[in-house]
Amino acid sequence: MDCGNQGMGEETELLLYGADRSQHVAETIRPALEKGQIVLCDRYADSTVAYQGYGRNLDLALIAKINEIATGGLWPTLTFVLDMDESVALQRISQNRTGGFDRMEGETIAFFQRVRRGFLAIAENEPHRLRVIPGNQDREAVFAEIEVHLKRLIGE
Amino acid sequence: MDCGNQGMGEETELLLYGADRSQHVAETIRPALEKGQIVLCDRYADSTVAYQGYGRNLDLALIAKINEIATGGLWPTLTFVLDMDESVALQRISQNRTGGFDRMEGETIAFFQRVRRGFLAIAENEPHRLRVIPGNQDREAVFAEIEVHLKRLIGE
Repeated sequence: MDCGNQGMGEETELLLYGADRSQHVAETIRPALEKGQIVLCDRYADSTVAYQGYGRNLDLALIAKINEIATGGLWPTLTFVLDMDESVALQRISQNRTGGFDRMEGETIAFFQRVRRGFLAIAENEPHRLRVIPGNQDREAVFAEIEVHLKRLIGE
Repeated sequence: MDCGNQGMGEETELLLYGADRSQHVAETIRPALEKGQIVLCDRYADSTVAYQGYGRNLDLALIAKINEIATGGLWPTLTFVLDMDESVALQRISQNRTGGFDRMEGETIAFFQRVRRGFLAIAENEPHRLRVIPGNQDREAVFAEIEVHLKRLIGE
């Protein structure tokens, strides 16, 4: 019920992300899968756990429920977490941005530390689905690591 | 996951109504109550049960969960259901509208029959909170009935 976050309540934000995810699944992801396509998606329900759960300290059981509604139980076969020190990540963002910051980017370092801890906790709980890739390597090294995992999966 | 309803999934619609309700509670209703004001509200969480639950046949336990998140457990002391035959209600709406129809007004008679059954079921389950007022009386008679209940409550 806290309205301190740019005038929007935390539960409102959670429900809006859920609505957005639900529509994205129904309109884009499921139809693509039904056509037999491979879907690559930047951010999914794990992000809600990490940002709203760990970042904003909302109840994780509540978030699991919203994710279940929003995804209809559809989860990726494989998820990559590009992990790096949050202060370096923020530096990169500020160097590469030409426009303004979005809702999340206006948050504190402590918030991003909690979010990072969230992603790593999910990866620890679901080691078969998530792969943590060190993000402070150069771009080519990150790509090469991801490629190995993808080839193994698609080769199956 | 059905996207037949004007391109919007039913779960998306549910989550968007939840987000709207959550923000309305946080921004308007709770601050007013904290100032000791009396809040009159046209439609609240019961409408989500009636329209999305009974009308769209979404799982009632799921809706209860969304309502709990959206309202933070805040429920009205007294709720009036203005009940009337759905075909008469739709006639009235079509006579009084100058603009277009909203999402709900584009629905079938069968949908509104289910919604009506929903409101009456809630009233039966929670007789202390809900009062069913026959809506096919004239405006003054409806007002007089409501006035009696309100005076009793505020007099307390």
